[in-house]
Amino acid sequence: MPGFIGIHLGAGQHSETLWPDYKKLCHRACKKGYSLLASGATALETVTDVTALLENSPLTNAGYGSNLTWDGHVECDASVMDGSTLHFGAVGAVPGVKNPVKLAQHICKKQRCNALALGRIPPCLLVGNGAHQWAEQAQLATVHSKSLISDKALKLYRHYKKKVERYELRIDKILTPLDTIGAVCVDACGNLAAACSSGGVALKHPGRVGQAATYGCGCWAANATFHVPAAIATCTSGCGEHLVRTMLAREAALEVQRSSCTVTGLHHAMKTKFLESPFLSGVEERLGGLILLKCIPSDGTGEFLWTHSSKTMCISYMSDAERRPRTRLSELPNGAVPGSTLVVEGATFKLNPLVERAEIGIYS
Amino acid sequence: MPGFIGIHLGAGQHSETLWPDYKKLCHRACKKGYSLLASGATALETVTDVTALLENSPLTNAGYGSNLTWDGHVECDASVMDGSTLHFGAVGAVPGVKNPVKLAQHICKKQRCNALALGRIPPCLLVGNGAHQWAEQAQLATVHSKSLISDKALKLYRHYKKKVERYELRIDKILTPLDTIGAVCVDACGNLAAACSSGGVALKHPGRVGQAATYGCGCWAANATFHVPAAIATCTSGCGEHLVRTMLAREAALEVQRSSCTVTGLHHAMKTKFLESPFLSGVEERLGGLILLKCIPSDGTGEFLWTHSSKTMCISYMSDAERRPRTRLSELPNGAVPGSTLVVEGATFKLNPLVERAEIGIYS
Repeated sequence: MPGFIGIHLGAGQHSETLWPDYKKLCHRACKKGYSLLASGATALETVTDVTALLENSPLTNAGYGSNLTWDGHVECDASVMDGSTLHFGAVGAVPGVKNPVKLAQHICKKQRCNALALGRIPPCLLVGNGAHQWAEQAQLATVHSKSLISDKALKLYRHYKKKVERYELRIDKILTPLDTIGAVCVDACGNLAAACSSGGVALKHPGRVGQAATYGCGCWAANATFHVPAAIATCTSGCGEHLVRTMLAREAALEVQRSSCTVTGLHHAMKTKFLESPFLSGVEERLGGLILLKCIPSDGTGEFLWTHSSKTMCISYMSDAERRPRTRLSELPNGAVPGSTLVVEGATFKLNPLVERAEIGIYS
Repeated sequence: MPGFIGIHLGAGQHSETLWPDYKKLCHRACKKGYSLLASGATALETVTDVTALLENSPLTNAGYGSNLTWDGHVECDASVMDGSTLHFGAVGAVPGVKNPVKLAQHICKKQRCNALALGRIPPCLLVGNGAHQWAEQAQLATVHSKSLISDKALKLYRHYKKKVERYELRIDKILTPLDTIGAVCVDACGNLAAACSSGGVALKHPGRVGQAATYGCGCWAANATFHVPAAIATCTSGCGEHLVRTMLAREAALEVQRSSCTVTGLHHAMKTKFLESPFLSGVEERLGGLILLKCIPSDGTGEFLWTHSSKTMCISYMSDAERRPRTRLSELPNGAVPGSTLVVEGATFKLNPLVERAEIGIYS
């Protein structure tokens, strides 16, 4: 069996006119991921390549087409986690790298050698020009910084920068492409991996690093062990600083691990560790979301869930039981207030034989 | 009552000839911290200023005198956490800032304004040149990058770089100034704070960010609440990547919170979350340490503990019951193997009236 892949295009407020485009991209990326799995790719390779595909689309706020910094540049965050080794690789505020997630993967893989010359430990997180230099040495595609700027991102940058400069003190909202995108996956060997990538918030201060490059905050993956029977991978999206302060990727994974029911466990995690988190005291609007993959290799069951407090979240997933990906533009129920209401939905599947069971959900 | 301050100069392998100098510096910084508290400084201000004092000393691997990167530059990591707001501020791989910890404090304080113009969220972590730019805007002391290089650091850099270039494949050990330094504190209002700062490992890749800039990994501080009666602050030291992967600052704080005995709680945390951590699978030598401050405002008791698996750790602490700081060069017991053995020691004190009780300890 090839495994299972689930991806998302960010928790946010998708422009309704673009819904078909988002769904198409999500669908295409998921299909690509599944075919990679079928051709024998590992979970880590699959999440990386799928996230790279999303980075290359101007629709996402990652790689090409990312939001611009206050100075008008593209600086990207990305990370991957390998559930089999528990290694993590990340890049923050990196300029001029075509696919930041591939660089994160390279850093992650490098950790398998426990020490460099003179006992130096391979890094987990590289930032800025130093990260760019590592990409060059690793012969990953580097590009002129300007070539990552899409027409749309530039237009939005100019529009909002003018607004800020004119009304510095007025608090309003920026509507730009959505936040962090990413993927979770289990491969034929039962290994899990997760990846995420983000261009960060529009008009961010240069050098700002968000949850997509922070350990335990952007993505999480841990295989099952003798003591922990469930393997879990997660990937978050939303306001970077809030996801860092709540460590949502890791907290949600741990909460689900402790819970006998995945849906109620995830709902509880989102409620107590995010919407009602003491780490977000004073924050009125708590916008976030995540996808979660749980597998129990010992009985062959799997679950894929998505949850968000943002208005919408575009997700896609595919298991062996499907001929094509299932893609959905998930919305909060009518009348629900973004930032203080949740939706948790999901699907179960069998790892072997892969038969999808009933869909499951909670709205609160 | 002014409160309590505890500081450390890094878990590592202190050169015995320099022991008197380390102890003198540690003592001086602690005394300064206590006098700041006595003059009404907040916990956050105190840990920041004490850490800045340590940064200014060429003895420490932080600020002036930091280890050099592979390219021969100084790039610093630092962070602070405010237990009263649970806000966190950090800088990573920042060049040319005299006191990285002051920049981290500035970023932390800025988070009190929940949103900048157009609803943008203030950053938690700034890196590289962007962080330097923020320091300039905040009118914090910036300096020419070269002025942070001490003679000793340059000498060690040349020595080890030559070694690596000659014997790239030979695994040996680098002996340079110790790792992350930092402080934990409770002020007269019962607020806790923690700070840490590091120049990172010698010959690190440019742009490498370690635990001193990573949320939950370098320092932690959380006041007591209605639901959580114990306030806890921690500060870690050791191999940055290992402290990131184990999230030791936060994990130790949570473990002690769950435990009825602080010493056994911390010992258990260091054992299960660090020495035996599944996140360090394959790592032979697990070198780390931390200081921990626990206060229970409701009954006025306090405890200060230090623990390390490295050969030595220099610490100093002072409460109202003392006329001067207690300073100690803590060592592993004779015959103990660094990287796989622990020492946990500490002292208890009363917050009001502040009377120190018996010293406590575990060796394993």
